[in-house]
Amino acid sequence: MSSRKVNKVNIPTIQEIKSPEFLKDLNYKELDLLSKEIRDEILRCTAKNGGHLSSNLGAVESTIALHRVFDFKKDKLIFDVGHQCYTHKILTGRSLENLRKKDGTSGFQKVTESEYDPFDAGHSSTSISVADGFAIARDLAKENYEVVAFIGDGSIASGLAFEGLNNVSHSNHKVIIVLNDNDMSISRPVGGLGKSFAKISLGSGYNKVKRGLSKLLSKNKVTRAILNFFRKIKNWIKFKLVPPTFFDSLGYTFIGPIDGHNIKAMEKAFKKAKNVDRSVIIDIVTTKGKGYKFAENDTSGSWHGVTPFNLETGESLKKCDTTTWSNALANITLKNMEKNEKLILISPATLKGSDLEEIFNRYPDRALDVGIAEEHAMTLAGGLSKNGYHPVVDIYSTFMQRAYDEISHDIARMNVGATIVVDRSGVPGNDGETHQGTFDAGIFSATPNCVITMPSSVEEADQLFSLSLSYNGPFFIRIPRGCVKPFYGNSGEVSFAKWYKKIEGSSKKVAVVSTGSLINELAKEIDESGKDATLYNALFIAPIDLEAAKELLSYERVVIYDPYSTQYGLATNLTMELVKLGYKGKIETRTLPNAFIKQASIDEQIDELDLKPSDIVKIL
Amino acid sequence: MSSRKVNKVNIPTIQEIKSPEFLKDLNYKELDLLSKEIRDEILRCTAKNGGHLSSNLGAVESTIALHRVFDFKKDKLIFDVGHQCYTHKILTGRSLENLRKKDGTSGFQKVTESEYDPFDAGHSSTSISVADGFAIARDLAKENYEVVAFIGDGSIASGLAFEGLNNVSHSNHKVIIVLNDNDMSISRPVGGLGKSFAKISLGSGYNKVKRGLSKLLSKNKVTRAILNFFRKIKNWIKFKLVPPTFFDSLGYTFIGPIDGHNIKAMEKAFKKAKNVDRSVIIDIVTTKGKGYKFAENDTSGSWHGVTPFNLETGESLKKCDTTTWSNALANITLKNMEKNEKLILISPATLKGSDLEEIFNRYPDRALDVGIAEEHAMTLAGGLSKNGYHPVVDIYSTFMQRAYDEISHDIARMNVGATIVVDRSGVPGNDGETHQGTFDAGIFSATPNCVITMPSSVEEADQLFSLSLSYNGPFFIRIPRGCVKPFYGNSGEVSFAKWYKKIEGSSKKVAVVSTGSLINELAKEIDESGKDATLYNALFIAPIDLEAAKELLSYERVVIYDPYSTQYGLATNLTMELVKLGYKGKIETRTLPNAFIKQASIDEQIDELDLKPSDIVKIL
Repeated sequence: MSSRKVNKVNIPTIQEIKSPEFLKDLNYKELDLLSKEIRDEILRCTAKNGGHLSSNLGAVESTIALHRVFDFKKDKLIFDVGHQCYTHKILTGRSLENLRKKDGTSGFQKVTESEYDPFDAGHSSTSISVADGFAIARDLAKENYEVVAFIGDGSIASGLAFEGLNNVSHSNHKVIIVLNDNDMSISRPVGGLGKSFAKISLGSGYNKVKRGLSKLLSKNKVTRAILNFFRKIKNWIKFKLVPPTFFDSLGYTFIGPIDGHNIKAMEKAFKKAKNVDRSVIIDIVTTKGKGYKFAENDTSGSWHGVTPFNLETGESLKKCDTTTWSNALANITLKNMEKNEKLILISPATLKGSDLEEIFNRYPDRALDVGIAEEHAMTLAGGLSKNGYHPVVDIYSTFMQRAYDEISHDIARMNVGATIVVDRSGVPGNDGETHQGTFDAGIFSATPNCVITMPSSVEEADQLFSLSLSYNGPFFIRIPRGCVKPFYGNSGEVSFAKWYKKIEGSSKKVAVVSTGSLINELAKEIDESGKDATLYNALFIAPIDLEAAKELLSYERVVIYDPYSTQYGLATNLTMELVKLGYKGKIETRTLPNAFIKQASIDEQIDELDLKPSDIVKIL
Repeated sequence: MSSRKVNKVNIPTIQEIKSPEFLKDLNYKELDLLSKEIRDEILRCTAKNGGHLSSNLGAVESTIALHRVFDFKKDKLIFDVGHQCYTHKILTGRSLENLRKKDGTSGFQKVTESEYDPFDAGHSSTSISVADGFAIARDLAKENYEVVAFIGDGSIASGLAFEGLNNVSHSNHKVIIVLNDNDMSISRPVGGLGKSFAKISLGSGYNKVKRGLSKLLSKNKVTRAILNFFRKIKNWIKFKLVPPTFFDSLGYTFIGPIDGHNIKAMEKAFKKAKNVDRSVIIDIVTTKGKGYKFAENDTSGSWHGVTPFNLETGESLKKCDTTTWSNALANITLKNMEKNEKLILISPATLKGSDLEEIFNRYPDRALDVGIAEEHAMTLAGGLSKNGYHPVVDIYSTFMQRAYDEISHDIARMNVGATIVVDRSGVPGNDGETHQGTFDAGIFSATPNCVITMPSSVEEADQLFSLSLSYNGPFFIRIPRGCVKPFYGNSGEVSFAKWYKKIEGSSKKVAVVSTGSLINELAKEIDESGKDATLYNALFIAPIDLEAAKELLSYERVVIYDPYSTQYGLATNLTMELVKLGYKGKIETRTLPNAFIKQASIDEQIDELDLKPSDIVKIL
């Protein structure tokens, strides 16, 4: 390996790193230099490619310390979510040059990328359960290695992580859990668990008693001896009498808090954890965004996940001509909250991603950030709705999957109203397979009482939002990621379960039924092609427009074009109805495949799947 | 109200109770008598109708105490799951005479039944999130009442309950949580949280220090004074220094443990809770099954949920001629575990319901009860599978909904193998709307890599199980509730994505495609009717048999009969394929409606929906 000499020791450049083995030869000064270089690389590549910045900047030293104490060819390192794994990727020889790009390095831990990645990450809070599985398998096979889960304080407050914690503590199969405690979560720490981290070393009760007893006992020789005894058992008391309550109550050995930027201190803690014979939690305290001023000063989560930005100014490089869909829906929500004091906004830790900060500032009492707790978000919504309020849950499609049961059981079945803004519907773009927004229309079409809509313009979104307020059930308004595109074609009345014709053809040769923003481009392409086709805007995916379905019977061909979902959703709903009505023409379906779609830009993904509007015009 | 006089006070008979108001006039002796009578009524009606027995017997006194301290016309009482609400139903004037029967009283809390039921219950662990919603709504509306969640120790260890706990502690909207701590959960307590309840009053650390200091300090006058001081602050220390760690760590005021059969003690605790100005947890310790010897002595959860039984002998009155589907699949699982040491069984607290006790006794290391933690069950399965083992998850269809995301994200997307036995697929029977097994085929058809099967015989289940072991993804084997019915018609080869003909008709007039156990009765009815039809056994719901779909093109009519799912599943999967192939005949679909189905027996539900095999024969 060609390398530089710093302090007479060879340090590979970032680009030269092939495996973490070199780490063991470096001294702490060199490790500090390396940390800085890794940080610069993360900043450089994230500024270029976008990605998760703050938590990755915070996890540099802890990842180095882990790779020095453990051998992750043998031991297993399971990152939660994966927002913290960039240093791990660099140390295991993966370039961030094409991070998140088509055919580039994934933004998450990924088995197919490296022998150092034992399991894929993507959705939050899976790491402890995965680690439990690995530990049980290890012990059954009588193998000998450590299983380490690396999880942030936001992810650990989620239900799945708690189930994992509760089961691991019981299972006698040792897992080491590194808790990256940066007091941030995605936007801010939520819930009692977050609070308890702050006071985790010693409760105020202990200190008060200690002070009282010290005062009392320091008076004479006997009592001084007692005081000495008391001091001697202080540490014992610290750990046995007033343990870090939450994790101890679950039966864990708790180590920490440790400075998560002090490699030496963490190595000591990790070595100690190796020697404990039951499951351990190591609390490391880190500064999210460490080393980049904009990210360090961020209190709103703006630097959690970023699009490409200017390193010097911190300014985002991708700007919309108009606005993003997220922002448009946030504005609609805000406008409605101004008019209607019964509206309550619920966000599962995606304030920044869904552009909700203004609402939280304006209406702190009616805007609830529940943390990474999608399930609670939906059952809470059911409770609010049953008691006279109207919840608006703003949630990413892919994360909403966590709450399938709660939406079905506590909203749809209860016939209570809830507006659900489904952000990032459609292909996953650069986040890749774990973050698809392509399934919600299918699974909620298959659930009673669910209304699924997708507007083609902000105005339609606004009208759908108004409609949603008087519906007694989950009313989904799906929006894609990215910028609002220009409207094209006829507009039509927005009313319950009604579609309208964006283009009315002159013959009955072919009708296209489509939904969502891309329909504007399709309308334009059809017009420009001069082809004779009728284009229905299926604002309602479920229930569909039964009158429109009847009209379709007179067309020779029906093309269903849904570039935001698999065939399950608009295509199945309409096809089943047409079949029921005895349609004799030809139904052609152009939807996303029922598959997990690899990372690339959204445009690249749509292009590769031959689902551009121009691809549809070709078959008309 | 006509009534009896006991100790000069009027006590209504159980049948006379209209509202809980009379409770406030009774003394503790009379309340004890009432408790006994309620217990007898619960036993009598559960023996007759089936239902949830043990937890209801345990919750008699606590429910009485709640109704004496609170006014639940104003205050809100939200039962978790609803396994503990029978006393509440009796006290609010609802008869258990037709418990769980068609048009009878529901086994769960139900808004449409009574003004005393603020929210429906059914699935576990929703109560705290619902209560949070009610409390937030109360405070925003500036109203003044208490919101009480009543939850068992099994339910509180689930992820959703934890998310609720964590958020409530943070929200400043007061909720009173009554934790019914019977150390049982459905089958047995699981996880560190369960363990911590046992030591919840005081940790051993505190007691050791106390003993040490006492010995040391009792030697002379000064130290005796200190000892006195120390004794004085004992209670303060108990609550401040060594709090019941888990709940305190989340920021709750904790009251307990209280004897959950001592009405007076509970009243005191509930009154105290009313006076606290933040969220409170009251830990009441109860004996599950209290008052019925078989249930009290039950350690396996056999008396949790029961079918009708003989009160004297405890023997179940409903017996199958052959065996139940649950038992058949348990036997198949056991047989495979004997042969293959890589198989690991995972159960989310349904050991008894799925007849898995023998496996747990035989293979304690390879049979994992994760408690009511369906999400963890599935992500754990993913981890095990990725590390060389093959998980078999035995789970009820309706509870599997909780783990939709984990099945998609950590099994289906990872391409790792898992056999998922989907118990209680189909209509919900007497449990009603909250417990439908009718959605899984739809939502997992809409998820990549999922294989969904349904056998028509135990032999087919056995062969499907064998096939599942070599598939890299979630392989669902759906089975209905109840007894295995006789096989009828041709049998055929069981191989991947293949159907076979149970009946081969002599013409191409009509083909029926069906799936699951009822197909045998349908085959028999077709034969006996003398009608000319071909009957395909669609063992695979997803993926479907593409060759068979091509064969169907030659039939004039295709009837899809799926009495175990909505149209989403077999019907959509086959229809989409037939449409794609350009089928010109008539497709008729006979499936369950996409709706929530009211409680009744399974036979009654199928009958009411005109989905009996004989109903299908009529349209051939």
